[in-house]
Amino acid sequence: MSIIDIITKKKNKEELTYEEIKYMVDGFINGEIKDYQMSSFLMAITINGMTLDETFNLTKVMIESGDIIDLSTIDGIKVDKHSTGGVGDKTTLVVAPLTASCGVPIAKMSGRGLGFTGGTIDKLESIKGFNTTINMDYFIKQVNDIKISLISQTGNLAPADKKIYALRDVTATTESIPLIASSIMSKKIASGADKIVLDVKVGKGAFMKTIDDAKELSKTMINIGKKFNKEVVAIVTNMNYPLGKTIGNGIEVKEAIDTLNCNGEERFTNLCLIIASYMVSLGKNISVEDAFDMVKEKLNNKEGYNKFLEFVKYQGGDINNIDICKNKYEVLSEKDGYITDIDTLKLAGFANDLGAGRKTKEDNINYGVGIILEKGINDYVNKDEVIGYVISDNIVDTKLLSDAFIISSEKIKEENIIFDIIK
Amino acid sequence: MSIIDIITKKKNKEELTYEEIKYMVDGFINGEIKDYQMSSFLMAITINGMTLDETFNLTKVMIESGDIIDLSTIDGIKVDKHSTGGVGDKTTLVVAPLTASCGVPIAKMSGRGLGFTGGTIDKLESIKGFNTTINMDYFIKQVNDIKISLISQTGNLAPADKKIYALRDVTATTESIPLIASSIMSKKIASGADKIVLDVKVGKGAFMKTIDDAKELSKTMINIGKKFNKEVVAIVTNMNYPLGKTIGNGIEVKEAIDTLNCNGEERFTNLCLIIASYMVSLGKNISVEDAFDMVKEKLNNKEGYNKFLEFVKYQGGDINNIDICKNKYEVLSEKDGYITDIDTLKLAGFANDLGAGRKTKEDNINYGVGIILEKGINDYVNKDEVIGYVISDNIVDTKLLSDAFIISSEKIKEENIIFDIIK
Repeated sequence: MSIIDIITKKKNKEELTYEEIKYMVDGFINGEIKDYQMSSFLMAITINGMTLDETFNLTKVMIESGDIIDLSTIDGIKVDKHSTGGVGDKTTLVVAPLTASCGVPIAKMSGRGLGFTGGTIDKLESIKGFNTTINMDYFIKQVNDIKISLISQTGNLAPADKKIYALRDVTATTESIPLIASSIMSKKIASGADKIVLDVKVGKGAFMKTIDDAKELSKTMINIGKKFNKEVVAIVTNMNYPLGKTIGNGIEVKEAIDTLNCNGEERFTNLCLIIASYMVSLGKNISVEDAFDMVKEKLNNKEGYNKFLEFVKYQGGDINNIDICKNKYEVLSEKDGYITDIDTLKLAGFANDLGAGRKTKEDNINYGVGIILEKGINDYVNKDEVIGYVISDNIVDTKLLSDAFIISSEKIKEENIIFDIIK
Repeated sequence: MSIIDIITKKKNKEELTYEEIKYMVDGFINGEIKDYQMSSFLMAITINGMTLDETFNLTKVMIESGDIIDLSTIDGIKVDKHSTGGVGDKTTLVVAPLTASCGVPIAKMSGRGLGFTGGTIDKLESIKGFNTTINMDYFIKQVNDIKISLISQTGNLAPADKKIYALRDVTATTESIPLIASSIMSKKIASGADKIVLDVKVGKGAFMKTIDDAKELSKTMINIGKKFNKEVVAIVTNMNYPLGKTIGNGIEVKEAIDTLNCNGEERFTNLCLIIASYMVSLGKNISVEDAFDMVKEKLNNKEGYNKFLEFVKYQGGDINNIDICKNKYEVLSEKDGYITDIDTLKLAGFANDLGAGRKTKEDNINYGVGIILEKGINDYVNKDEVIGYVISDNIVDTKLLSDAFIISSEKIKEENIIFDIIK
C-alpha cells in the first residue's frame, strides 16, 4: 500500500477499505506517516466526506490503537453519556447522580476541557479534595458500592484519536461529521459502556451550527453504535444561549447542586430530566415515560441531590469548599427592554480570558472565575439594571460584556431546549 | 488574519484575496505556518480549485518570494520554452539550437529532474566538460555572442514554489491545475523571458492524463501570462508513447544530435520543428508559416546542428565524449505482430531503476544507462526479433521489458503527435 495512493483515493472521493484506513492511522501513530501527510488526508476527508462503512472502520481502527476498558464486573447495564460541548454545560453533574439514584450504574470517564471552560473533570476539581484519578479496581468497587464514579480518563483510550484530534485542531479539519463521529465514538466505545446517550448540541455556542448537521452527526454516531452492538440515543439540544445561569467551573458546580436541590433554572432542569430519563430508560429497559416519572421523583425527593453529596464525599471532596471567587462585578443593561439575544460565544470567550478554560493543553484553569447571568431571554430589564455578574479576584471591565446582551422592545418567540431525539 | 480562517475559506470553496494567499505563502517560507497546515491548505486547493485571480495571485506571491532575472541587456525578444515533462523528452536540446540559429536569443535556465530521467541540465552534463553553472554576466555575454546558453537555474527563483512543490510531492497534492500552473509560471516569469512556448504533454506517460485537463492547464497558464504581459503559446502534445527512440541521458543527447543532423525519428523531428516554429514566430514577430520555413531550412542546412556544436563547445563540453554505457542487452519480441501499444510508464520506471533518474533529490544520476526503442507503434515484429536495447554496465534482465510492448495482429490508427495549439 502507498500513502500517496490512499490519500489520492480519498481526494478522488473513492471509498477506502479497512486495511487502507488502518495503514494510514497506524502509520501516523508509529511515525511512518508524517503529520503533513495526515493533515492532507484529513482535509480530503473533511471536504469529500466518508461513507458509513469508512467512518465505522476509522472508529474501529482508533479503538484498536489503545486499551478497551472492561466494565463487566459492574452489575447492571452501564450507560454512558456524552455532550458534544457547549457553553455552561454542567449537565453531567446533574444527570449522573440523578441516573445513579435510579439504580443505573454510572461508571464514567470524562475528559479535561480544551474549550471555553474546563470539562466535567476540571469542574469537579474545583471542589477541594475531590480526587479524579482513581485506579480501575477502586473505580469499579465505587460504582458497585454507590452506583456512581466520575473519573479522569484512565489508561490509553484511542490514542490515535488523540493524536489526530490535535492535528485537526490546527489544520482547519475540525468541521467534519465523519471525523467528529469517529472521534467521539472511538472514545465512548473504548470506555466500555453498554449503551450511550449523546447530547448533540447545536447553535451559536456549539460546534454544529445547523440542526441538519446535528441530525446527520447523530445518525452517523447511532449507526456506528449499531455496528458495535451498542444502543445509542442522540438528543439534539439548543446551544444558541448559555446553558443555565453560570459559565465557569466552581460556579457551575454550585449551579448543578442548586439544580439537584430543585432550585435550578427551569430550561436547564428540564434538559437534565430528559437526558437522565433516556439514560434510565436504556439502563433499566423501561419506557422513557416511566423513566421520566422515576427521575422526576428522585429530583423532587432529593435522592439525586443526596447521591451527588455521597459521590463527592466518596471521592474525597469537601462540598462546603468549592473554589468560587469572592469579588462580583456587575454587568449593567445598556437600555430598557427585553433581552432577545445573548452573544454566547462572546460570553464564552470572556470566561476563557478570565482563565475559566485552557487556551493550550499546558494552561492551568482558574476554577474560581466565571460569569453569572442574572437575566435571560425575554426577561425585561431597565437601563443600568444588573443583568449579570463577573466573578474574579482581579479587577474586570464588565462594560465589554454589556453589549453581549441584545435588548429590544418586543419579546421573541422562545426556542425549544430540545430540537429532536434520534434513536 | 488567521491561518485557520484562511484554510477554512478555501475548504468552503470561497475566493481568497492576494493578502490571504501572501499570508499563507510567506508564513510557510518563514516557518510560522507549519508544513501540516500548508498541506491541509494545498489539499483544499487541489479538491476545490482556485479562480484565475487566485491562481494569478499565488503565482505573483511565489515570484515575489525570490529573485527576478533581468535579461534586458540581451538584444532581441527573449523566448523561453517549458515542457510539463514526459518520457524521453529531449526536445529542448533540439529546439533551442534550431531557434537560436534563426536569430532568436535563447537565454534558458533549466531544472534538474526529479523524474524518470534527468532534466535537460542533467542530460547536458552527460557531455564531458559541459559547464551548467555559469554566472549571470557570462551567461548574458554568451547569449549576446552566440544567441544561446543553457544553464542550471541560478539565483533564488521562486523559492516558495520550491518549498511548496516538495510538500505537494509527498501529500498527494500534485494533481491540481492551479498549483501546477502557478508553479510553472512563477519560475518562467521569474526567469525573465519576454515570451514563452509551453509544451503541455498529455497521455499515459505525462502528468496530465486527458486532453481536456491539458487544455485547461494551458489556458490557465496563458491567462496568467497575459496578466504579467507575457505572450504565451501552449502546444498540447501526445505523451502516450516515449518521445523519440531513447530514454536516458547520454543517449538522449546522442538522439538530439542525430535529429539536428537530419537523422531523427520522424514524429519527434516534426514536434521539434513545430515547437521551434512557434518560438521563432514569437521571437521575430513573424507568421508561424514563415517561421516554420525558416526553421526547416536551418535543420536541413545543418545550421541548427552547428549551433548545437558551437554552444556545447562554448560551455566547455567535448561533443565526442558523451557518457553512454558500452553494453547493450537485447529486448526481444514475445510474438509475431504489430506493436500497438507501449507501456510508457513501465519503460520509464525501468530506466529510473537503472539509475537514469533520481528517486530522491540527493541521488546521483547514471548518465550512461538507458533504453533504446528499435521498433515503434505499428512496426511489424517477429517473435524473438530485437525490439529494443537496454544499455547498462551492469547485467540486466531485459525479459522484464518485453511485456511493455503490446503486440497484436492488426495495426492501430496512429495518434497525432500534436493535439492542439492554444494561444
